[in-house]
Amino acid sequence: MIAVIPVSPLNSAKSRLSEFLTGEERKLLLMNMIMDVYNALEDLEVCLISKDDEILNFSKELGLIPLKERGKGLNNAIKQAINAVEDEEVIVVPADIPLIKKYHIKEVISKSKKNSIVISPSRGGGTNLLLLNPKDIIEPKYEGFSFLKHIDEAKKRNVEVIVYDSFLISIDVNTPEDLGEVFIHGEGTHTYKYLKSLGIEVLPKHSSAGRFIIKR
Amino acid sequence: MIAVIPVSPLNSAKSRLSEFLTGEERKLLLMNMIMDVYNALEDLEVCLISKDDEILNFSKELGLIPLKERGKGLNNAIKQAINAVEDEEVIVVPADIPLIKKYHIKEVISKSKKNSIVISPSRGGGTNLLLLNPKDIIEPKYEGFSFLKHIDEAKKRNVEVIVYDSFLISIDVNTPEDLGEVFIHGEGTHTYKYLKSLGIEVLPKHSSAGRFIIKR
Repeated sequence: MIAVIPVSPLNSAKSRLSEFLTGEERKLLLMNMIMDVYNALEDLEVCLISKDDEILNFSKELGLIPLKERGKGLNNAIKQAINAVEDEEVIVVPADIPLIKKYHIKEVISKSKKNSIVISPSRGGGTNLLLLNPKDIIEPKYEGFSFLKHIDEAKKRNVEVIVYDSFLISIDVNTPEDLGEVFIHGEGTHTYKYLKSLGIEVLPKHSSAGRFIIKR
Repeated sequence: MIAVIPVSPLNSAKSRLSEFLTGEERKLLLMNMIMDVYNALEDLEVCLISKDDEILNFSKELGLIPLKERGKGLNNAIKQAINAVEDEEVIVVPADIPLIKKYHIKEVISKSKKNSIVISPSRGGGTNLLLLNPKDIIEPKYEGFSFLKHIDEAKKRNVEVIVYDSFLISIDVNTPEDLGEVFIHGEGTHTYKYLKSLGIEVLPKHSSAGRFIIKR
């Protein structure tokens, strides 16, 4: 079993956070999130694939296996990584889910069996964790409603689908609102400490749904 | 063990959905969500507290125990219900989390022990499930960042906190975006069928985070 973390180039990273964070800060945010995701994966080998040399160097220093991305698009990056590694089973997780914990990975692995996928949703219909057992059991179909696409793929191929239901895994950090979730649920993470150090503050919005007001 | 569902008056129900749904439709949406939440709670007695006679009559017909709300505000409603019931342990869930499943309730109950709370977050820092064992172990502190408030309350009183991490429980339906989550994850629910019958359609937004475009 190996984990694969695909990472987009830094210059386009997290552009929806540009109201709150400079380019340099978004880069540091990404690095902090990579540390948190890597912590959750501590018992596994982890391969990080990216076009960006700075991210590759950073991940190498942390102890991840860096892989230079050659093709175009997220699905091709994941396929390249899956082909490059020797392991028979692969867990794919994005770099921007800093609330993921070690116990999630343990539980996900314990639920996995031959000829199955384990999948966790992101908000918005996406996929924030995908365990492929074996690694070529379905093709990665990220982007759009990838959660539904992955389940469809599995059904077409008679592959068992195990949904791993986690709020913490569902939170990918893309918008200022997402920073709010890190403030509520992220104590003890690198990402939380970094955002705190920037003087970011989070207040409840006065409404029954309680979304966030983010201040800096 | 009894479940308590507090419900706000119909005339203010789900006003952030008024772009998409008429007042009558929002009422029917609420009734469908109550049916889904009640399904998840099938092995328990369920008390629904509301000021609204139409909702109370509807819930009585379904088989819930209706309780006329007398005070003001969500926390007082919950306290009134907790005092009214004879059971020693109470699970509080809102009416607007139609993706909750029977297996969640089973797992939550199995994790509960004397002198503990089991809590599940909503997005935005709120609380979408709260099991109090026994029922007066902490005061309900809904509104604002109630997830943190409930944990603080428990710590102050030396009460064990068990966080039950569920994406499906975290989805409360308040905004058009939330309808998107019901379309992705709600197959088989009354709420999903009702929204489908209204001709609502959901498309992925073209962006890496994949939030929704909701059309009608």
